[in-house]
Amino acid sequence: MRHSQMFIPTMKDDPADAQVISHRLMMRAGMIRKVAAGIYNYLPLGWRVVQKVATIIREEINRAGGQEILMPMVQPAELWQESGRWYEYGPDLLRLKDRKQADFCLGPTHEEVVTTLVRDHVKSYRQLPITLYQVQTKFRDEIRPRFGLMRGREFIMKDAYSFSRDVPAAYQAYEAMEEAYQRIFTRCGLKFRAVEADTGSIGGNRSHEFQVLAETGEDLIASCDSCGYAANVELARIFAPEKSESPAPVAAREKVATPGKKTIADITQYLKIPESKILKAVMYMVDDKPVMALCLGHHDVNEFKLKKVLEAKQIRMLTSAEIAACGQIEGSSGPVGAEGKMRIVSDFAVRGQNDVFAGASEDGFHFAHVAEGRDFKSEFFDLRVAKDGDRCGKCGSLFKLHRGIEVGHIFYLGTKYSKALKATFLDENAKEQTIEMGCYGIGVGRTAAAAIEQNHDANGIIWPASIAPFQVSLVRLGDDENVVQEADRVYSDLLGHGVEVLYDDRDERAGVKFAEHDLIGCPVRVTIGGRSLKEGFAEVKLRREADVKRVLIGDLVNYVRELILHS
Amino acid sequence: MRHSQMFIPTMKDDPADAQVISHRLMMRAGMIRKVAAGIYNYLPLGWRVVQKVATIIREEINRAGGQEILMPMVQPAELWQESGRWYEYGPDLLRLKDRKQADFCLGPTHEEVVTTLVRDHVKSYRQLPITLYQVQTKFRDEIRPRFGLMRGREFIMKDAYSFSRDVPAAYQAYEAMEEAYQRIFTRCGLKFRAVEADTGSIGGNRSHEFQVLAETGEDLIASCDSCGYAANVELARIFAPEKSESPAPVAAREKVATPGKKTIADITQYLKIPESKILKAVMYMVDDKPVMALCLGHHDVNEFKLKKVLEAKQIRMLTSAEIAACGQIEGSSGPVGAEGKMRIVSDFAVRGQNDVFAGASEDGFHFAHVAEGRDFKSEFFDLRVAKDGDRCGKCGSLFKLHRGIEVGHIFYLGTKYSKALKATFLDENAKEQTIEMGCYGIGVGRTAAAAIEQNHDANGIIWPASIAPFQVSLVRLGDDENVVQEADRVYSDLLGHGVEVLYDDRDERAGVKFAEHDLIGCPVRVTIGGRSLKEGFAEVKLRREADVKRVLIGDLVNYVRELILHS
Repeated sequence: MRHSQMFIPTMKDDPADAQVISHRLMMRAGMIRKVAAGIYNYLPLGWRVVQKVATIIREEINRAGGQEILMPMVQPAELWQESGRWYEYGPDLLRLKDRKQADFCLGPTHEEVVTTLVRDHVKSYRQLPITLYQVQTKFRDEIRPRFGLMRGREFIMKDAYSFSRDVPAAYQAYEAMEEAYQRIFTRCGLKFRAVEADTGSIGGNRSHEFQVLAETGEDLIASCDSCGYAANVELARIFAPEKSESPAPVAAREKVATPGKKTIADITQYLKIPESKILKAVMYMVDDKPVMALCLGHHDVNEFKLKKVLEAKQIRMLTSAEIAACGQIEGSSGPVGAEGKMRIVSDFAVRGQNDVFAGASEDGFHFAHVAEGRDFKSEFFDLRVAKDGDRCGKCGSLFKLHRGIEVGHIFYLGTKYSKALKATFLDENAKEQTIEMGCYGIGVGRTAAAAIEQNHDANGIIWPASIAPFQVSLVRLGDDENVVQEADRVYSDLLGHGVEVLYDDRDERAGVKFAEHDLIGCPVRVTIGGRSLKEGFAEVKLRREADVKRVLIGDLVNYVRELILHS
Repeated sequence: MRHSQMFIPTMKDDPADAQVISHRLMMRAGMIRKVAAGIYNYLPLGWRVVQKVATIIREEINRAGGQEILMPMVQPAELWQESGRWYEYGPDLLRLKDRKQADFCLGPTHEEVVTTLVRDHVKSYRQLPITLYQVQTKFRDEIRPRFGLMRGREFIMKDAYSFSRDVPAAYQAYEAMEEAYQRIFTRCGLKFRAVEADTGSIGGNRSHEFQVLAETGEDLIASCDSCGYAANVELARIFAPEKSESPAPVAAREKVATPGKKTIADITQYLKIPESKILKAVMYMVDDKPVMALCLGHHDVNEFKLKKVLEAKQIRMLTSAEIAACGQIEGSSGPVGAEGKMRIVSDFAVRGQNDVFAGASEDGFHFAHVAEGRDFKSEFFDLRVAKDGDRCGKCGSLFKLHRGIEVGHIFYLGTKYSKALKATFLDENAKEQTIEMGCYGIGVGRTAAAAIEQNHDANGIIWPASIAPFQVSLVRLGDDENVVQEADRVYSDLLGHGVEVLYDDRDERAGVKFAEHDLIGCPVRVTIGGRSLKEGFAEVKLRREADVKRVLIGDLVNYVRELILHS
C-alpha cells in the first residue's frame, strides 16, 4: 500500500488512558481506536496483524483436525438455563431482551451452543471424534476493561471444542491441540511457555495456559528449562527435599524480646537475622477447623496449594478473635505449644530446621533456637509460592522465573457440559455414553498485544516477521524525479515478487518518516534517497538492529527477498 | 477433507419451517443450523461457502482502493444520539444496557462509528479520498425473520464507506465501488442486474441495488438488454410515446349500464372488451388536494412515481366519503365531468385514446366511446408499473422482466451523516468543507443463499465453481482393497495439486452417496468403483450436466484439473 492512501492515524504523544506499552503503541501507531470502554475499532494496520495471527491459528487448528464453523454472538437464554450458567455467571454475561422481550445474552463463550449442535447430530461412536472451532467476536462485560486489546469487553477469540468417546480419546484431542498451540505461537515468532494450570472443580490433570513471556506480564511463572515443566508460581510444584531424620538441635530454646515488632521484615531487622531464619505462621479456618500453616520467613504460604493438599472446600484467614481463641497472638504466633489446639502443617522447607526463630505466642516475644521435632511437630507438604532459587518439582533442576501474558488456555472439560445438555452417543454395545469434551481458547487480539509487550523498544514496535502488518517499509526521501522513479520501480518490483510493502510516498521530512516507521515496526526498512541513489545505493535496515546496510540498487530486490526469507 | 471425519449433518426430509429453496437445501445439506429465530450456526460446509464469497469481496474491494478494518458490534448510544438515529430507528435496532446501565445498541450498520473515526483523523483535503470497509456480523431485530440466511437477525455483511472532498469525487468513489460489485458477483458465478434504486430523502441520482436473478426472488425487475438499464418495476422508467395531436373521436359518447360491476375484471367481462379498452381511475389525497390518476385497465397506477412527479410529501387513497365529496363513486369513477373538482393526471398510455370506456361517476353506469381531449383533459406522466411488453425509458427497447434477490446496495449518501457528526476538512483555501460520503453493502450469507435460489435442481444445490464448498466430490464405492488404494491415491494427488476435495470414504451405499453429493452440489463428481476400476476407468460427472464420462484412471487427475480450470 502507498502510505499516502492509507488510513494510518498516528499520534505523537501517548494517549492519557493507555497504561501498558502495547496499548500505547497500538494507539500511537494508528492500529486501534477506542469506541467505548473496552470496545475498539481495528484500523487497517492493526487489522492486518490480527488477520495474520488468525490465519496462522486457522492453518494449525485445521492441521490438527479442527473444522471451522461460525456460531452466533447473540445466544438464547434457554441454552444457558439448560447448562445452569444463566444463573451462575455473574454480570460479565451481558443479558438483553429482543423486541419480543425474549431473553438473550452476548456470548462470552460457546460451550452451550456447540454442545447442543453436536448433541443434535451425533448418535453413534462412529461419528466421533469431532473438533469444531471458530474465530469470532465475543463480549464479556468486564467491570474494569483496560489495557487496550489486552482486556477488552468486545474481543476476538479462537475457541475450539473437542468431542470424544472416552477419556483417553479426549486426552488425545487435548494433546493434538496442545501441539497445535505450540506451533501457532512459535509461528507467531513469540517466546512463550505452556504452563500447567488449575483444573478447578472439573478435575483431571489436563489444563494448560499459554503464556507469552514479557516483563510487563501480570502473571509470574516458574519454568524449568531441563524438563519443560512450567506453572504459575502459585501452582508450580516445588522439588521436595529427601525426607530425613531431623538433625540434632543446636541449642536450648530461649525467649527473646521483640517489642512492638509484628512483621517478618521488622522482626528480622530488629534481631539482625536473615528472613530465612524465622518461621512464618499463618492461621486459617479450613472447613471450620483452625490450621496453622508454617513456612520460612522468606517464603509465602500458598493458599491455593494449602486448600488442595487439605482437600478443603473452603478456606479463609482467622480473625483476630479466632487467633486469640487458639492461644495465639498476631505478630508473635508460632508452633511451640500449639499442638492439640490446631492442626499444624508446614512447607517442606521447614523440615529439619534446627535453629530458627519463631513467635512465642506472647505479645512482644519470640523464641530463638527453635528446632523442628523437638519444639513442635508438623505435617509437611509443598505449601509455598515458588521463588527464584526453587527447584522444579518434576526434575529437580533450578526454576527460572518469568513474567507472562496468558494468550491461550486449553482445558479438558470432561462431561460438565455434555452431562448438563445430555450430549450422549451409543457405543459399540449400543450402550448410551456421555461425550467427553475439551475446550481451547486463544485471544487473537491479545496475542497481537502480547507480541508488542515482548517486542518493542523506546522507538516503537518490533513485530515478529510473520505477524507484521507489512514485511517492508519502503521510505522514499524527497521528490527528486530519479528518486521517485526508482522508488516506484522498487515498490512494484517487490509487490510483483509477493512482498508486502508499506511504501511511504508522502511529502514528509526524513525524520518524521523514520520515526513513524520505527513506531509501526515492520521488520525491514528500505530507504531510497537522492544522495545514496546518485552513488547507486539504497539503504536497508532491520528494525531489530541498529546498523544500516548500503545495498547496490540493482541487487536491492533480491537482497530484500533473501532477508525476508530468513527472517 | 475426508467425509467420514467431517461434520456434515445432512437431513433426508425438508425441515418444516423452511419455506424457500435455499433455506431448505442449506439445512438439508448440513450447511446451517438454527439457534434461535433468525440466528444460525454456519457449519463447516456452509462456512466454507461464506468464506469464499467473503474472499472474493475482499479482493475486489481492496482492488477498488478499499481498506479493511473491523468496527465493533456493540455500539454506544451517544454516537446514535449524535446522528439522531437513536430516536428515528425503530425496534429493529436492538438496544441494551451494560452492567453500569449505560445505553448501547447492536450495530445494524456503521455510519456513526466510521464517520466519527474519520472525523477525528481527517483535517485536510490531502487526506481524502478514503474508503474503509469491514466484513462483520451485524444484528437487526427483524419482526419476522425468515428464509434462513435470506432474512436473518444476526447476519454477515460487507459494509464499505467512502469519504470524498466533493460531489464529483464522491461519484467517482461510487463508480469504483459499482465496478467492484460487478466484478464480485461475476466472479461468484451469478446472473445479476445492477438495478436503479430509490434515493429516498437523500436525493442525487446514485443508488443501485444488485439483484441476483432467480424465479423465487421477491423483487420484480424490468431490465433492458440493449442499454443495460434496469430497475424495480415500481421505479423503471418507461418509454414515453411521442407527443402527438389527439386523433379524432370515433363515435359519440354513450352511457351504458354496468349493473353491480365494480372491478375492471368484472366490468370488462360484462362488456366483453379487453382490459386495455377501459380507463382505470384511482383517487388520491396528495398533500391535502384530491387527485384522479388514470391509466389503462391492464396497467397499474404506480404510487411511487405519482408521488415523485407531483413532488408530493404525502400521498394516500381517498376514503369513500372523500370520493363522494368529489362527485365520484367507487366502481364507476371516471374523468368525464371531473375537471375543476380535482386535478387529473394520466399515464402516458392514456394519451390519444379516442375510443375507450370510463366510469360515468354514477352507480352502475359507464361511458362508451370516451375520447381523451374531447371528453376530458389531463396532464400526462410516466405513472404506471412496468409490465411485460413495456419499453425501456432510456433507449426504447423492449424490457425483459425478471425476479430478483437483492444482495447488494450502493448508495451516495451526500452529507447526511457527515453534517450531523460534523465531519469536515479544510480545502486548499483553508475553508471548512463537509465530507461527501457513500455507503456500500453486500449481504454475504444472503449472496450464498441467492446463489442457491438461482442454481439448483430437484436433487439439490448446483454451486458455481468459485464459491462451491469443494471443487470435487470424490466418491469411493465399496471397500475393495484396490478401490481404497486407488481412491486414496487420487485424493492425495488432487490435494497435492491444490484441488479442494470432499472425499467420501464412508461405508455407505452408492445411492446414498450420490444423493448426498447431489444435495451438497460440488461442481465435479469423481467416482471410483470396483467394476469400472477393473477396466481401468473412473467416472466423472458434472453436477450441472446429466452425462457421466468414463476417464482412464491414469488420466484422471489431469482431466479433473482441466475441468476445474475451465469451470
